[in-house]
Amino acid sequence: MVEAWLLAPVASIISILIGLFLFNYVNAKDAGTDRMKELAGLIQEGSRSFLKTEYRYLGIFAGVMAVLLSLALGLTIGLSFLFGTILSGLAGVVGMEIAVKANVRTANAAKEGGLSSAFIIAFRGGAVMGLMVVGLALLGISIIYWLTGDPEVILGMSIGASTLTLFMKAGGGIFTKTADIAADLVGKVELGIPEDDPRNPAVIADNVGDNVGDCAGSGADLFDSYVAAIMAAMILGGSSAIPYLTTVPLLYAGLGIIASIIGIAVVRVGKDDNPGKSLNMGTYITAGAFSVLTYLATSMLGYDMKIWYCNVTGLLVGIIIGMTSDYYTSIEHPPAKKTAEAAQTGAAINILTGFSYGLISCFPALLGIGIGSAVAFSIYGVYGVGIAAVGMLSIAGIIIAGDAYGPIGDNARGIAEMAKLGDIVLDLTDEIDAAGNTTKAITKGFAIGAAGLTAIALLASYQQVVQDIIGRTITFDLMNPLVMMGIFIGMSVPIIFSAMIMLGVSKNAYAMIEEIRRQFDEIPGLMEGTAQPEYDTCINMATTGALRELFPLIIFSILTTLILGFVGGISAIAGYLAGAIFSGFFLAILMANAGGLWDNAKKYVESGHFGGKGSDAHKAAVIGDTVGDPFKDTAGPSLNTLVTVISQIASLFAPLFVAYALLGI
Amino acid sequence: MVEAWLLAPVASIISILIGLFLFNYVNAKDAGTDRMKELAGLIQEGSRSFLKTEYRYLGIFAGVMAVLLSLALGLTIGLSFLFGTILSGLAGVVGMEIAVKANVRTANAAKEGGLSSAFIIAFRGGAVMGLMVVGLALLGISIIYWLTGDPEVILGMSIGASTLTLFMKAGGGIFTKTADIAADLVGKVELGIPEDDPRNPAVIADNVGDNVGDCAGSGADLFDSYVAAIMAAMILGGSSAIPYLTTVPLLYAGLGIIASIIGIAVVRVGKDDNPGKSLNMGTYITAGAFSVLTYLATSMLGYDMKIWYCNVTGLLVGIIIGMTSDYYTSIEHPPAKKTAEAAQTGAAINILTGFSYGLISCFPALLGIGIGSAVAFSIYGVYGVGIAAVGMLSIAGIIIAGDAYGPIGDNARGIAEMAKLGDIVLDLTDEIDAAGNTTKAITKGFAIGAAGLTAIALLASYQQVVQDIIGRTITFDLMNPLVMMGIFIGMSVPIIFSAMIMLGVSKNAYAMIEEIRRQFDEIPGLMEGTAQPEYDTCINMATTGALRELFPLIIFSILTTLILGFVGGISAIAGYLAGAIFSGFFLAILMANAGGLWDNAKKYVESGHFGGKGSDAHKAAVIGDTVGDPFKDTAGPSLNTLVTVISQIASLFAPLFVAYALLGI
Repeated sequence: MVEAWLLAPVASIISILIGLFLFNYVNAKDAGTDRMKELAGLIQEGSRSFLKTEYRYLGIFAGVMAVLLSLALGLTIGLSFLFGTILSGLAGVVGMEIAVKANVRTANAAKEGGLSSAFIIAFRGGAVMGLMVVGLALLGISIIYWLTGDPEVILGMSIGASTLTLFMKAGGGIFTKTADIAADLVGKVELGIPEDDPRNPAVIADNVGDNVGDCAGSGADLFDSYVAAIMAAMILGGSSAIPYLTTVPLLYAGLGIIASIIGIAVVRVGKDDNPGKSLNMGTYITAGAFSVLTYLATSMLGYDMKIWYCNVTGLLVGIIIGMTSDYYTSIEHPPAKKTAEAAQTGAAINILTGFSYGLISCFPALLGIGIGSAVAFSIYGVYGVGIAAVGMLSIAGIIIAGDAYGPIGDNARGIAEMAKLGDIVLDLTDEIDAAGNTTKAITKGFAIGAAGLTAIALLASYQQVVQDIIGRTITFDLMNPLVMMGIFIGMSVPIIFSAMIMLGVSKNAYAMIEEIRRQFDEIPGLMEGTAQPEYDTCINMATTGALRELFPLIIFSILTTLILGFVGGISAIAGYLAGAIFSGFFLAILMANAGGLWDNAKKYVESGHFGGKGSDAHKAAVIGDTVGDPFKDTAGPSLNTLVTVISQIASLFAPLFVAYALLGI
Repeated sequence: MVEAWLLAPVASIISILIGLFLFNYVNAKDAGTDRMKELAGLIQEGSRSFLKTEYRYLGIFAGVMAVLLSLALGLTIGLSFLFGTILSGLAGVVGMEIAVKANVRTANAAKEGGLSSAFIIAFRGGAVMGLMVVGLALLGISIIYWLTGDPEVILGMSIGASTLTLFMKAGGGIFTKTADIAADLVGKVELGIPEDDPRNPAVIADNVGDNVGDCAGSGADLFDSYVAAIMAAMILGGSSAIPYLTTVPLLYAGLGIIASIIGIAVVRVGKDDNPGKSLNMGTYITAGAFSVLTYLATSMLGYDMKIWYCNVTGLLVGIIIGMTSDYYTSIEHPPAKKTAEAAQTGAAINILTGFSYGLISCFPALLGIGIGSAVAFSIYGVYGVGIAAVGMLSIAGIIIAGDAYGPIGDNARGIAEMAKLGDIVLDLTDEIDAAGNTTKAITKGFAIGAAGLTAIALLASYQQVVQDIIGRTITFDLMNPLVMMGIFIGMSVPIIFSAMIMLGVSKNAYAMIEEIRRQFDEIPGLMEGTAQPEYDTCINMATTGALRELFPLIIFSILTTLILGFVGGISAIAGYLAGAIFSGFFLAILMANAGGLWDNAKKYVESGHFGGKGSDAHKAAVIGDTVGDPFKDTAGPSLNTLVTVISQIASLFAPLFVAYALLGI
């Protein structure tokens, strides 16, 4: 019954078909008034123009990389790499296209039909993204495995996907926060015009940013963890004498898609329901269905039930990390309230309080990953860790759906504001937007946790790859000086990366602030609302700025890995990957949670506490929120992918490191 | 020639004698006008009252711990522990006493004699601290080694010193920032009265804080790394067949004292000299003298010259980390200037920029420690790492002198302001104060680097202790799930500790702000300057607040170590210590440098750039500085000691972990 894995391609094709069906479902809805269509058109155009520019550069980059990889490691790897970039790029395009259609239709449905009909459009728009991502990813893996039967070839595809993801995630992250900060600082702070005011030259760039950063970026993010986790578990399974271990990850991933489809089908919201609760309910139902399906499949196929225990361990860790992220960021719990309260004494104490709670929020996540990986290992060795990561990521379909829902709601709110649809519609889209923020905390926590486990599985698969090459077992002793040195150097890669990317945001925002001021100075009638601002200039600035910051950084990360590998050899690299996991995981959780916390603390003040909008506490909370923006939307989300990329580069180049390293193996 | 180590007690007695001589030298100087004496008396009283309260609690704590340790591990360890707490406590008292005498005498010398005479008093005041700390520490170690001949007994003394240090460092850190933030927020921000204005009820507490936090605390800080490094190297040397390896650390430490005395003797500043440069020159001369002396001693005694290479490696790493810290924080280099420039767009971008540079500044430090420890290891195994740490810390005498100079200058400035000594004196004390800030960056970097290497040496000595117990070699494989779990849990200890301690500052500052407002409301004539504020209330609030926050935290850290040890066993603890080193070292560098950077960015604005004092950029920079205060003066400096404490607890309890751990060894 090894052919049970064929469930994977079947489920992924079903997933793609349902995704296309939902795309048409959303697309068939009315896009509203002419003004709404015009605004949506601007956002759509801006988003496409960003993606087009980005893809042009990425196409060249991917082509060059594919050639280099083919020369260094053979044509199969080169082609597999290219295949990965194409699939990941496709997922990004689809996600973006649906997002820019769903946003205006959600706004219109809020105007015409109320909460339930608006919610369902936003959610199904997100679901398109979720289903297409997991469908394309799993189909790609299945095709390569079917063609070659060798999980290590999937590594090529996985790196292709991860590298592209890193560009989309980090590039989109720089773009979105550049526009957001610049628009707010000049618009809200200097000129006192409201958020999403169409007079603001950066307002379209800001809404484009939501799409390219949050939506396309985060879809691609889980694409890459998803592929990497399945690939790592397959490599670890391949070293065993039991043939089905290699294909269990495919089977579980296929079942995960079915569970996600079930979850997506049941999510809807009644007149008095809370959209946030409905979204979470969908996730829990999917997790439950996934557990049951995998249990049945594992036992009916007569597979070792220990695999299933590892699977459930991963799922539990994901849910725990997601739930604690929610606790530390949600507006309903003490951390956000205390951070808001601290804003009364000014921005400094607000920032310190939020940062401190952000640090504390890392504890459950670190504990969860530490204990979870140890439990999975004790059940089924390194393979168990790989399966735990797969278990966590198998329900990526619904997780991405919830995640992509967020920016659609955010955009719908923006359009409602810009098109002046009135307070009732604004309140409804606010509610939809707020639910997105809650869900985002959970899905982000989940995504970071999944990436953490995946990274450990990748480290294990790196060890496996090395052992296959040298033909004996190898250990990486903590007291081996090369390992220790590798850890310290590896730790600095996520640290430097997040710092540089945040400095990039500041630098670009700085330039864009000048541009916005220039437009208000030089375009007569702009402030009075009688003239249009030049939206394009801001979009172009954000696009080229983001890409200019990014290329050197990504090349730095890859080169550091290669240089250390060719100097320090495979033990140094093992330490290096571990170090990158340690600091990367820590910073990713810290930045996501502290950022979310400051955001919600600001919202708590805005909802009327401690003086409400316009009070000194509010001004302080806005500063905290602005600090948190690049934390949670630029640096934090890129770190997972960064770690995944360098982990895979290390595995891919392991044969060369073994052959040519300067300081022994 | 094993008796060469007797140089250690001889040098330490000389050090203590010169320290006492300089104490009298400073004490004999004139303390100025009656008003100055009165103010200095208030600071002195407040400092003593804090120390008295703290020592009362610590006495009970130390007594209980000594009894518990005696019961668990034998009377010798209990007594050795007590001895360590007494020596460390004594060093704190001496440092505090000289600081509260030198401050007012420095201010008076600035009034009467100008820069050179003021500088020499401040510096020699710091030198008393430096000489007493290294003298007492090395004498203590020598006595125990002379009595028992067993380096592992020194472990007891070292833990005693470290635990007390952790209280002094973290307690003083909470105290000083509580008072500083509260005094500034109400005084400077709300009421618009200048810094160090005597009408401010928290002003004396603020100045007391400089003494108890920066001066006594940082002296005790290096005390503990110093003892721990020497002890760890002795334990590592003890496992070898070459008898002199055990005593080389003592010999080098003795030579380090002599080199420090040379350095202290040559530091002085001419009329047009720059005090900061003079201080740094003293450090470089000491480092040079130390290298030469150890070279001569090693070769003349016929010891293996590889030991000397490790020694110099450590020294170089320390200097590199110190110098890069200087680059990333100093007002003269781009990071501080760009952070100041970013303040023009508001507090948020100022904070993001400073935080980003703080992250980047970790890179050279991580690289330095990583490569330094690998080089030392490749020269002489784990013993080489121990010697590298000793090499770095041997010149602690001059490092502490430079470090303790800072708060003396800061206090002198405060007294000059409060006693209204006029602008010329204020400018002079400003210059002395500013030099302290520059030196502080270097000495802090040095101290953190030294603590990092010491922690790695402690991890190695932990491994040695475990091997001695189980009678075979043991490795800690990164892929061992217990090790990996240990790393994740270990990472969270410094993270939680720094978060809780910063929240403690916010909480206490919040309470003190209320108290200051109350006094201004209820004491008639306070604002007009006709009535005295109740300084004592603020001092008492800061004292009890600090201790109340601290006890649970320290007990949490110790208990976490013991619980994990008794559950996960020695492999989990090895990972745990490594994890604590990773996150602790990273956070310590980040917090010290980001904090210093924001401080200097503010000073750069104040010196007339981007609108100067009172501008919007200045307001933004002040917010950044306030965020940085608990970073650099509360959380950051405590982390080294925290890691040292738990590392030593682990070694001490290793026999019990081996015997009783739940999940195997």
